[in-house]
Amino acid sequence: MKEASLRGVLAPVVTPFTPTLEVDTERLVRQCRWLVDRNVGLAVFGTNSEGNSLSVGEKRDLIDALVGAGLPATRMMPGTGACALPDTVDLTRHAVARGCAGVLMLPPFYYKGVTDDGLFAGFAEVIERVGDANLRIYLYHIPQVSQVPITLSLIERLLARYPGTIAGIKDSSGDFTNTEAMLGRFQPRGFDVYSGSETFLLATMRGGGAGCISATANVNPAAIARLARDWRSPEAQAQQAALDAVRNAFQPFPMIAALKEAIAQCGGGEAWRSVRPPLVPLAADQRSALRTRLDALAFDMPGLAP
Amino acid sequence: MKEASLRGVLAPVVTPFTPTLEVDTERLVRQCRWLVDRNVGLAVFGTNSEGNSLSVGEKRDLIDALVGAGLPATRMMPGTGACALPDTVDLTRHAVARGCAGVLMLPPFYYKGVTDDGLFAGFAEVIERVGDANLRIYLYHIPQVSQVPITLSLIERLLARYPGTIAGIKDSSGDFTNTEAMLGRFQPRGFDVYSGSETFLLATMRGGGAGCISATANVNPAAIARLARDWRSPEAQAQQAALDAVRNAFQPFPMIAALKEAIAQCGGGEAWRSVRPPLVPLAADQRSALRTRLDALAFDMPGLAP
Repeated sequence: MKEASLRGVLAPVVTPFTPTLEVDTERLVRQCRWLVDRNVGLAVFGTNSEGNSLSVGEKRDLIDALVGAGLPATRMMPGTGACALPDTVDLTRHAVARGCAGVLMLPPFYYKGVTDDGLFAGFAEVIERVGDANLRIYLYHIPQVSQVPITLSLIERLLARYPGTIAGIKDSSGDFTNTEAMLGRFQPRGFDVYSGSETFLLATMRGGGAGCISATANVNPAAIARLARDWRSPEAQAQQAALDAVRNAFQPFPMIAALKEAIAQCGGGEAWRSVRPPLVPLAADQRSALRTRLDALAFDMPGLAP
Repeated sequence: MKEASLRGVLAPVVTPFTPTLEVDTERLVRQCRWLVDRNVGLAVFGTNSEGNSLSVGEKRDLIDALVGAGLPATRMMPGTGACALPDTVDLTRHAVARGCAGVLMLPPFYYKGVTDDGLFAGFAEVIERVGDANLRIYLYHIPQVSQVPITLSLIERLLARYPGTIAGIKDSSGDFTNTEAMLGRFQPRGFDVYSGSETFLLATMRGGGAGCISATANVNPAAIARLARDWRSPEAQAQQAALDAVRNAFQPFPMIAALKEAIAQCGGGEAWRSVRPPLVPLAADQRSALRTRLDALAFDMPGLAP
């Protein structure tokens, strides 16, 4: 089972930019290597990657660069869902061709109030057009951002029609009741449920889930991966509490800018502060406040290089 | 003033697809000609055009095809705002190079709750990168879909910094109080305010506005354009009422599918029913209901060819 390589923890890898807001490919390669070395997989082009702020061409090139640099495609789950069907097909096909073990797929998210019929048709059209038995789709449920939810009944229909291809879901709703419903109903059928935050990692693992795909896996990878491995151990609850404390340090700030600021402060260097509009870097007072909160936890990111 | 050619009424031209969901370029050219012949400008790639369901490459090719077919670029305001900065820059640059009188620009709409600072930076970056004195940007305020509003204070900042380039706005909020605020505050400075629906056309013209960019201009172009011209006449209020009656016939249905259905029924042919996912065509009962409502108004679309 190819997709088994994706179980555990993945990071929606933050994307480094140059001062002129071009993607800094070499820096991304180094960051991905640092994550993989800490047992964290690569959900590049996620929400926290500013994935939708990158063009399809940029994303194709980055997949090539990451694979070309020797990073394991078996540990990659690039985000490929776009508003336009041809874009989703193009990037998904490319990811499969390069050996990515799975793709994380947003629904088309421009139109709001769309029907499950329309969303089903969209996913079906992508699957048919890509037409590759190696395709593994992880649905991406993040209604507070996409505003287009992936309902349980839509999952049911997709699983019934494409049981080999619809491989799982990332539930970023923050509503663990919803995660539990998916764990109960779909996980037993081999549909891998990932929590969208390590806040629910222990609960997800105890519920039979696959792991988590979390923003803060960018900054706290080793500890989060450890809990995904050791969740049956007596120390699991204490490990979860320690993860929560780190995540809590980031909560008062816009997450993406805060992750980049932490990387900048912990050895990555100032260049990491760049974000593409419409995001903005942390303001000076936010930077100090984050620093204070991280210092209080003696937080660091060992091994990080600029 | 190049942009004066855009005043009056524009249609977010619905996009025809083939049975395999490719863009039917020839049919779009015919439809655009039919609209231009009825004094309606071409806001191609708008919300009702399924503009965000098309790739940047498809949209570049369509601009080339429309201009190549002899349609007037001086009457074109293609939608060019995307989530990713490089996409917005690419398509905007192409539109300006082909002579389009203006572009209709959504803010980057994936992230929600973004700041005016971030949106200002986004528009500024596009303007600086395109770097063309002929660029005229019409901002696109459609918060119920984009979920990212264009606030009055953002307009103020953009106008102050780029007075020649920030040319106007389409207000699709449906909140005429907001349109009035823009008419009072910005229109006197040469910032052209368009209502997002002909429902507010007469009121917008009386308030000094530029016209409207409306879904139903796809199906009722001549009458809407007539009111934009004759709004000072004694018949204006009656004309507005007649426009409202036609628009009202479409209101119970999903707008884009209903527009395409009306075109299909009124001489355009069945092929017009195709929409790209996540949209779906009208169901059979909706088709009949729309037909009944249009018949009650003796509605037709003279001159429409398949």
